[in-house]
Amino acid sequence: MDILILNGPNLNLLGTREPHIYGSQTFEDYFEGLQRQFPEHRLDYYQSNHEGSLINRLHEVGFSFDGIVFNPGGYTHTSVALGDAVASITTPVIEVHISNTFAREAFRHHSFISPNAKGVIVGFGLLGYQLGIAAIISGQLANKK
Amino acid sequence: MDILILNGPNLNLLGTREPHIYGSQTFEDYFEGLQRQFPEHRLDYYQSNHEGSLINRLHEVGFSFDGIVFNPGGYTHTSVALGDAVASITTPVIEVHISNTFAREAFRHHSFISPNAKGVIVGFGLLGYQLGIAAIISGQLANKK
Amino acid sequence: MDILILNGPNLNLLGTREPHIYGSQTFEDYFEGLQRQFPEHRLDYYQSNHEGSLINRLHEVGFSFDGIVFNPGGYTHTSVALGDAVASITTPVIEVHISNTFAREAFRHHSFISPNAKGVIVGFGLLGYQLGIAAIISGQLANKK
Amino acid sequence: MDILILNGPNLNLLGTREPHIYGSQTFEDYFEGLQRQFPEHRLDYYQSNHEGSLINRLHEVGFSFDGIVFNPGGYTHTSVALGDAVASITTPVIEVHISNTFAREAFRHHSFISPNAKGVIVGFGLLGYQLGIAAIISGQLANKK
Amino acid sequence: MDILILNGPNLNLLGTREPHIYGSQTFEDYFEGLQRQFPEHRLDYYQSNHEGSLINRLHEVGFSFDGIVFNPGGYTHTSVALGDAVASITTPVIEVHISNTFAREAFRHHSFISPNAKGVIVGFGLLGYQLGIAAIISGQLANKK
Amino acid sequence: MDILILNGPNLNLLGTREPHIYGSQTFEDYFEGLQRQFPEHRLDYYQSNHEGSLINRLHEVGFSFDGIVFNPGGYTHTSVALGDAVASITTPVIEVHISNTFAREAFRHHSFISPNAKGVIVGFGLLGYQLGIAAIISGQLANKK
Amino acid sequence: MDILILNGPNLNLLGTREPHIYGSQTFEDYFEGLQRQFPEHRLDYYQSNHEGSLINRLHEVGFSFDGIVFNPGGYTHTSVALGDAVASITTPVIEVHISNTFAREAFRHHSFISPNAKGVIVGFGLLGYQLGIAAIISGQLANKK
Amino acid sequence: MDILILNGPNLNLLGTREPHIYGSQTFEDYFEGLQRQFPEHRLDYYQSNHEGSLINRLHEVGFSFDGIVFNPGGYTHTSVALGDAVASITTPVIEVHISNTFAREAFRHHSFISPNAKGVIVGFGLLGYQLGIAAIISGQLANKK
Amino acid sequence: MDILILNGPNLNLLGTREPHIYGSQTFEDYFEGLQRQFPEHRLDYYQSNHEGSLINRLHEVGFSFDGIVFNPGGYTHTSVALGDAVASITTPVIEVHISNTFAREAFRHHSFISPNAKGVIVGFGLLGYQLGIAAIISGQLANKK
Amino acid sequence: MDILILNGPNLNLLGTREPHIYGSQTFEDYFEGLQRQFPEHRLDYYQSNHEGSLINRLHEVGFSFDGIVFNPGGYTHTSVALGDAVASITTPVIEVHISNTFAREAFRHHSFISPNAKGVIVGFGLLGYQLGIAAIISGQLANKK
Amino acid sequence: MDILILNGPNLNLLGTREPHIYGSQTFEDYFEGLQRQFPEHRLDYYQSNHEGSLINRLHEVGFSFDGIVFNPGGYTHTSVALGDAVASITTPVIEVHISNTFAREAFRHHSFISPNAKGVIVGFGLLGYQLGIAAIISGQLANKK
Amino acid sequence: MDILILNGPNLNLLGTREPHIYGSQTFEDYFEGLQRQFPEHRLDYYQSNHEGSLINRLHEVGFSFDGIVFNPGGYTHTSVALGDAVASITTPVIEVHISNTFAREAFRHHSFISPNAKGVIVGFGLLGYQLGIAAIISGQLANKK
Repeated sequence: MDILILNGPNLNLLGTREPHIYGSQTFEDYFEGLQRQFPEHRLDYYQSNHEGSLINRLHEVGFSFDGIVFNPGGYTHTSVALGDAVASITTPVIEVHISNTFAREAFRHHSFISPNAKGVIVGFGLLGYQLGIAAIISGQLANKK
Repeated sequence: MDILILNGPNLNLLGTREPHIYGSQTFEDYFEGLQRQFPEHRLDYYQSNHEGSLINRLHEVGFSFDGIVFNPGGYTHTSVALGDAVASITTPVIEVHISNTFAREAFRHHSFISPNAKGVIVGFGLLGYQLGIAAIISGQLANKK
Repeated sequence: MDILILNGPNLNLLGTREPHIYGSQTFEDYFEGLQRQFPEHRLDYYQSNHEGSLINRLHEVGFSFDGIVFNPGGYTHTSVALGDAVASITTPVIEVHISNTFAREAFRHHSFISPNAKGVIVGFGLLGYQLGIAAIISGQLANKK
Repeated sequence: MDILILNGPNLNLLGTREPHIYGSQTFEDYFEGLQRQFPEHRLDYYQSNHEGSLINRLHEVGFSFDGIVFNPGGYTHTSVALGDAVASITTPVIEVHISNTFAREAFRHHSFISPNAKGVIVGFGLLGYQLGIAAIISGQLANKK
Repeated sequence: MDILILNGPNLNLLGTREPHIYGSQTFEDYFEGLQRQFPEHRLDYYQSNHEGSLINRLHEVGFSFDGIVFNPGGYTHTSVALGDAVASITTPVIEVHISNTFAREAFRHHSFISPNAKGVIVGFGLLGYQLGIAAIISGQLANKK
Repeated sequence: MDILILNGPNLNLLGTREPHIYGSQTFEDYFEGLQRQFPEHRLDYYQSNHEGSLINRLHEVGFSFDGIVFNPGGYTHTSVALGDAVASITTPVIEVHISNTFAREAFRHHSFISPNAKGVIVGFGLLGYQLGIAAIISGQLANKK
Repeated sequence: MDILILNGPNLNLLGTREPHIYGSQTFEDYFEGLQRQFPEHRLDYYQSNHEGSLINRLHEVGFSFDGIVFNPGGYTHTSVALGDAVASITTPVIEVHISNTFAREAFRHHSFISPNAKGVIVGFGLLGYQLGIAAIISGQLANKK
Repeated sequence: MDILILNGPNLNLLGTREPHIYGSQTFEDYFEGLQRQFPEHRLDYYQSNHEGSLINRLHEVGFSFDGIVFNPGGYTHTSVALGDAVASITTPVIEVHISNTFAREAFRHHSFISPNAKGVIVGFGLLGYQLGIAAIISGQLANKK
Repeated sequence: MDILILNGPNLNLLGTREPHIYGSQTFEDYFEGLQRQFPEHRLDYYQSNHEGSLINRLHEVGFSFDGIVFNPGGYTHTSVALGDAVASITTPVIEVHISNTFAREAFRHHSFISPNAKGVIVGFGLLGYQLGIAAIISGQLANKK
Repeated sequence: MDILILNGPNLNLLGTREPHIYGSQTFEDYFEGLQRQFPEHRLDYYQSNHEGSLINRLHEVGFSFDGIVFNPGGYTHTSVALGDAVASITTPVIEVHISNTFAREAFRHHSFISPNAKGVIVGFGLLGYQLGIAAIISGQLANKK
Repeated sequence: MDILILNGPNLNLLGTREPHIYGSQTFEDYFEGLQRQFPEHRLDYYQSNHEGSLINRLHEVGFSFDGIVFNPGGYTHTSVALGDAVASITTPVIEVHISNTFAREAFRHHSFISPNAKGVIVGFGLLGYQLGIAAIISGQLANKK
Repeated sequence: MDILILNGPNLNLLGTREPHIYGSQTFEDYFEGLQRQFPEHRLDYYQSNHEGSLINRLHEVGFSFDGIVFNPGGYTHTSVALGDAVASITTPVIEVHISNTFAREAFRHHSFISPNAKGVIVGFGLLGYQLGIAAIISGQLANKK
């Protein structure tokens, strides 16, 4: 299967930024481990701090890939445009958040992405990405939404 | 590992109730499959329509089990008492919802359980329970929250 | 026809509690009169102060009875779980309130039951139960909702 | 008894307008049936799309008739003036809605009439009018409110 | 001076309706007294339960009279159209309410008329009309708004 | 094509009222120009300050005309009944506002008409009516809503 | 009669402060004119920028004077304590505002004083004080509230 | 005097749960001390995690005991039914909270019990129960509410 | 122990003001009784209608006294400054309200003092002050907050 | 005249994305037709998924072009920066939405662009762009706003 | 230049109160340093816990001084009267807060002073006062607001 | 010291856009003056209309520079991602706004940046940038936040 791991703003700082919330591993290190963990699948990785670039990438893979694991970072709570992009494509999207957004500030409790996602995984740290991939390769998302 | 699958109100009707939302498999059938899938772990199952019984069960296993996968059903959105129970125990609790609650009525978008859960999994159908168990047996929840 | 009269919390005190709002007749006396009034139908009566017991009873009769006249009392305004139970069953449910809840505190103006009920009858005193039964035995609810 | 059936805006289109919500019978046909059903009572019928005309009619009969069954249509949710008119008269008013307003848009969940009505009947289709008349002729509204 | 006393919905019932709030004198009796009290001015009186008729009357006199004392009744709180009518004309409008609307239900605390009125007089009973007329004939409203 | 231009409250004052917002041309003058501009279509014009009269007119033409260009004036923001009337008829309705209501008071930002209109045109001055007519005679509204 | 004119914060600047809103006459000048206008009554005047001093003065005269004309200035919108003071005394209090507070910022639309006042006069400039005195000496406030 | 100490959900964990908030003494130990402290009164103790059981117990003792000291735990903020139960009985109820609920999450600031309680005691730790008992045996609650 | 009883605005009228809510005893009489009841402690009493004077008094005793029993009256609901003053001092403060503020107007349900108080006692009439003193002299407040 | 057609996020998918809402024609095809329809005017077209690129383009043409027809897509509801850009330039901007945003989710009912637009056209499908161009070339926007 | 440093409630405790938020230097010490830092300007200092005294001081210097650096403390968030006082005077006022009020409780995020201040400086500790003085003596505030 | 001046959307138009609000000087001219004013420090300047580019620049300098003076323009009120970026870096950030945002539209009163900024400076025109630089080079920000 072809699967995109898509990360939004500030997630390039992972391992540097606020390690008491997000842990101290860089995402690149983690991603290499992910690829080794799922050798029979093709995993792509893209990160951008630009809302428009995230939309573009969703459009590019969103009609051919088998799944997208998407952590929209701070755009989660403010971007109608990203929510629309997720709704516009046919590839199923799994929304992932590293920290438990429901235990943080009130403005982090609402997501414009969730209503259009196949599933939402919140608060498991980096493990959440693995759970998202596992969901996609289970083949059980096909008939939902 | 000792893991409790805990289901809240109306989930006893699974397979009967609104199958266009929740699917047509009964939870008992699904649970047998779960046990076969994780043979080296002890999986318990409990369902109740009583808020108090759910609290009691959380108390009973919440200081000795290794994890709880909890679908609080309709109590998710209204029960401070269940949220307090989850906060009171030491066993990590994974909150699971079968349907995508964020794509349904507004009153289903808020959970009193989530701020106290180790992680939240929403919208994957019954697959969500498996993801929750996988998270627990990964051993990666230990140092969170 | 088989019809259940289902009463929620504190309605066991009817005739004792705040008679200036609810009147001074006990529900048992009233129920006997109801049975005499509709001799060709089987009327059942159940009251509980437990939300879970009310859900259980809805499940038990909700796929075989011809109608349920349900006064959810204080759970009306707070119970997503009861609203879900009403939505889960196939027997039509008539929601009844003895007092005019719209003329009382603001928190009594919203019902989690109403969107899933076949009909709602508010403010007629005990007469409301008779109107609910009359609606069921009219046979005109069949093609609604 | 003298009873007025009073219908508000757009109810003249009944049978024409959105039949999937309101059914396809005209109110005139239904009203003839109602008169036959209660031969020992005098039933009057009035419909207007003018808020002021509805207020006028409430004033005209509101100190002499035995009851009014009132479907205020779209004015239900916006008219303080109609709510005041119902409060100003001495004839008991039963508020009726054909569709289940609580299952429709949020702005239809609030009524300025309900706090001043003797009783409220929602969601029973045209049957609601019959239930309203039955309540009036039961003679049990006298000592309420 | 030419002054219009304009009364909105339900004020025709004055003396009949809820006398514990509005007193028991009819407005016609009161108006005759008013005319005797201000013999050198021409006082007109108009009452309607139709929002449109009130708008029409404001248009008719609103470019030639010296002042309007307007009690919009229940339309006060719901009528953008009446507020616009008051803003559209050049005759100064004094808004009057017989009861203390600020001591009643919350929905009576907001007025669509007040921002466009020259002045607002609330809670003085029928005396409020006299105060409104006194304000107009004082000649001190000319340079306001 | 048969097209109705329908104007709501206070629009009879056009050319008189607040010319800095609405311009100084009367609607009658403008309407004559409109008729000359679209000689092969029949344009009707109706204005009323009565909500009920506007509803009546919508009913009268709403099953036979080819389009209605409707400026509901102040009723836009308060009339559920007019919104229902637009939803009840089969003729497509174009909602037009002369001024930019979104740049004015907050209560003018919401319309009960818009969800039921085929299209909404705001802020173009009297030109908006022409745009509405152009949309109707384009024949492109047929398969919408 | 004994009547107190009571002015709250910043009203000592009258004639100096924002004359486009409040006019350019000082209150002292105006008060002298008031005394000449009502020679058979004793008019007292007190102004303070201290909330506590205003409360004290209300207590001092509030059981013996015949009326108080009170402009609470900026405390109108924030002082529960002043509202309680007005409710605590037996002398009737008339609330006066010089400018039309309903045409200004939203936070000026609510008053903690109004529910406890005998009457409210808003937007008449300094004329409002005269109207308030006229209301008191009319003797018609006695049986209200 | 006969006095019931009634504890709601999760309070059975006292001494175990979140001791930084609730302290480390079990309630049973504390209760024995209470009984020794008030030897001339009969103190009963009941705890349940079931909302319905708490309602039942209020009904059972609520017409014969001299006072109830009630800590409704998490049901405080969500239970209309418990608030109704307190209103339905004649025994005075003192609401007690161990922690300062007003210094915690916003959803803990509102209580459905308080409006119907004789008095409310918040934030004194276990001492609050003693204060509640002291209030009951003072005999000064009799003429209140 | 040194304990200050501190009363806010309008409480000097106790015994005079609205006796159906606050009782008819003056606070001075009550305070003498209090002193007799706790002869081994020094009780001070201070009342002011000035917010600033209450702040000053809190500062003066707030680093040396053993406890303050504070009824902030109407300032409870509006004074951030008093809440800050209570937070600034080291003497524990007990907030007391004579009436059940939770059963009165909604604006009385929120307190800026409570989050910073050691404990809150509401609705016990004057008995609340005694309970507050009892809490202070129990010596059990030391390790809280 | 020089006119820019400016499209925001996801509109590049037109013809692909959710055709039941937006139709199945690509915008490029449509744009060619537009150019043929207005041969004597120069029409430019630009689309971007980047908020910043849309702002840049507004700046580039916003002081020299004769008009901009702007569909801001999902940024409509969230972008203060785009609203500011529209306010900053001197070229008149017409806001267009293909679907009836007022008939969709509540978060689509508010636009940060509208208060700064010359006019707003909603719900006409692609026809809306033509209406926008027609408005610009009518020459009637010059003296507005 | 003549400049007033004006401090509101509880700021007399600076150096004592909550030093983890406000630091441990007294304001008097700091003020002496300020005077040495700006030797060619006259700096005055006034602090009061009385809202009325702060208003009085603003009036006294507000038409002759060259600038006021004002920290309104807890009155910032509740005082319309102080906001009006700042608006009433002609001397420019700089609002200063020592702590970052936007990072604290929600009720500290709104200021009634800010809309009328020349500038606002938040979160710089005592340095904020120096920045305020620097702004005044820069002479660049003259043509603002 | 190394200091970045960072400007957000539309600030490239400074001197062109709405000069009655922002003045007529271009930022480039102003920046040259700034450099001359602080010759012993290195001042960098960057402006972008892209949210992502602003985040990138914050990341690039945010672990090595001594301070950032940041005017986020319209993104202030909508960008969680920029607020997160400011929180992620270690260089102190001063938020500056040229106009008094608190005196403009309500949506400009909230900032997602402020809670994470070292200090906030609002309403001083371009002078605000100088104050921000002065704060950084004072060396007094080191121990804050």
